[in-house]
Amino acid sequence: MTESLDWLRDIRGLVFDMDGVLWRGKETLPGVVEIFAWAKAEGIPCLLATNNSMSTQAMYVERLGKIGVPLEAEQVITSGTAVRDYLRATYPADVTVGAVGMPALYDVLFGSGGFTQEDRRPQVQVVGTDLGFAYDDLKRACLAIRAGAAFIGTNPDTTLPTEEGLVPGCGALLAALVASTGVQPTVIGKPEKYMFELCAARLSLQPAQVLMIGDRLDTDILGANRVNARTALVLTGVSQRQEIVTTGIEPSIVTADLPELLGRLQAARA
Amino acid sequence: MTESLDWLRDIRGLVFDMDGVLWRGKETLPGVVEIFAWAKAEGIPCLLATNNSMSTQAMYVERLGKIGVPLEAEQVITSGTAVRDYLRATYPADVTVGAVGMPALYDVLFGSGGFTQEDRRPQVQVVGTDLGFAYDDLKRACLAIRAGAAFIGTNPDTTLPTEEGLVPGCGALLAALVASTGVQPTVIGKPEKYMFELCAARLSLQPAQVLMIGDRLDTDILGANRVNARTALVLTGVSQRQEIVTTGIEPSIVTADLPELLGRLQAARA
Repeated sequence: MTESLDWLRDIRGLVFDMDGVLWRGKETLPGVVEIFAWAKAEGIPCLLATNNSMSTQAMYVERLGKIGVPLEAEQVITSGTAVRDYLRATYPADVTVGAVGMPALYDVLFGSGGFTQEDRRPQVQVVGTDLGFAYDDLKRACLAIRAGAAFIGTNPDTTLPTEEGLVPGCGALLAALVASTGVQPTVIGKPEKYMFELCAARLSLQPAQVLMIGDRLDTDILGANRVNARTALVLTGVSQRQEIVTTGIEPSIVTADLPELLGRLQAARA
Repeated sequence: MTESLDWLRDIRGLVFDMDGVLWRGKETLPGVVEIFAWAKAEGIPCLLATNNSMSTQAMYVERLGKIGVPLEAEQVITSGTAVRDYLRATYPADVTVGAVGMPALYDVLFGSGGFTQEDRRPQVQVVGTDLGFAYDDLKRACLAIRAGAAFIGTNPDTTLPTEEGLVPGCGALLAALVASTGVQPTVIGKPEKYMFELCAARLSLQPAQVLMIGDRLDTDILGANRVNARTALVLTGVSQRQEIVTTGIEPSIVTADLPELLGRLQAARA
């Protein structure tokens, strides 16, 4: 299949999912330092993209720094920063925003983001994963959406993996609000298109020049395919090769891990 | 339509919805005392049936007592007591039960109900309306259901009317758990059949001998029709007459209010 990989030569930017690609739990996966170093040497810009709205850009910069990958905060796109950028692109600067979420989401919206927080009658209601949410938060969001606030979800993941097992994620909270408002949210995170469009725009590239590297067919690969970006599935995380057949979601390339992917990139540009 | 009301003669028990039938908010509706007094004089037993799992039987007995209708606690069926009876009929006495709900639900399950409370790995997970629930309750229920606990919902109402507006009800919580577990609950309250079957069984009557009196086509009337009980829509609550056409849910009889219904019952038995 050597011919069919000619497109690898035209890749001008990389977007990495993190969990299952760069690390698995606390374990750093092989090839992380090497692929970032190669991209830097080749002048290929890199972004990191995560559906997580509970961590800040700084937390990811710190974690990557510790394993030898220097990054700027702007290279990290969380579903929280993506929502902030979506709001900036869609609403006037004085739009009022209500939020359900963790401190990282509040910070990106009301701290660095500069939006006006309005709990009772916001024009936009943002809902992210919130491991501390209470009925009153759900009620507040329900009343705001029923009163006409635009309903924005950070990400659609219905569960989160934890040591205790799979626990309810942002998508579960969104389902409760869909049930109690009858309104469908605009969802920003993968596999929705916005996050991938944002990555391409941030890199000033056409989607076909961008390679999305992920471990999940149903989020990373599906979403990037939707915007016609190139996609690499690495088999170090959730999805296995046979799921390509069962799901019908086809990545542009499949590699065992990052070192194999790096080898392909180097060969294509040799 | 006089002929078509012959079946009214055969009614041997009455089941009343409460809000919109006996009262509207704090206001007692006309004819409440009279219809209960007439039923007593005729030897027709009465039950009250509500999807509310947040109030106890005693609270309803007290409210009815104050407006001049003496009742026994056993005449009040809440979705909480119906869940208790469903569990008794379905599981062995030593079944372990986890619950998300208000104190009234805990009391009916673990106080008077006598079930063994088990939060971590229950065999049955009951979920009711809970105006004080937190993420940890949702997580606990999610983990229990994912570990195989039977998933029981007290009632499907996605919203509750309050002075602030419509706020999330039990159905919203159920939606969050369906999203995060992939499991559909067994729902006990109206318009599901169990509550109506329970009422007929409690009265030792065939459903066709029971008249369900309600103000909502989509709960009271729909559910009672499903078990082939007779149904009376009173127009003192949520549903209006024209909704019979738009919903296709047909009550056996429609009256403006309880006094008109009582007149029809008296005429049929004269």
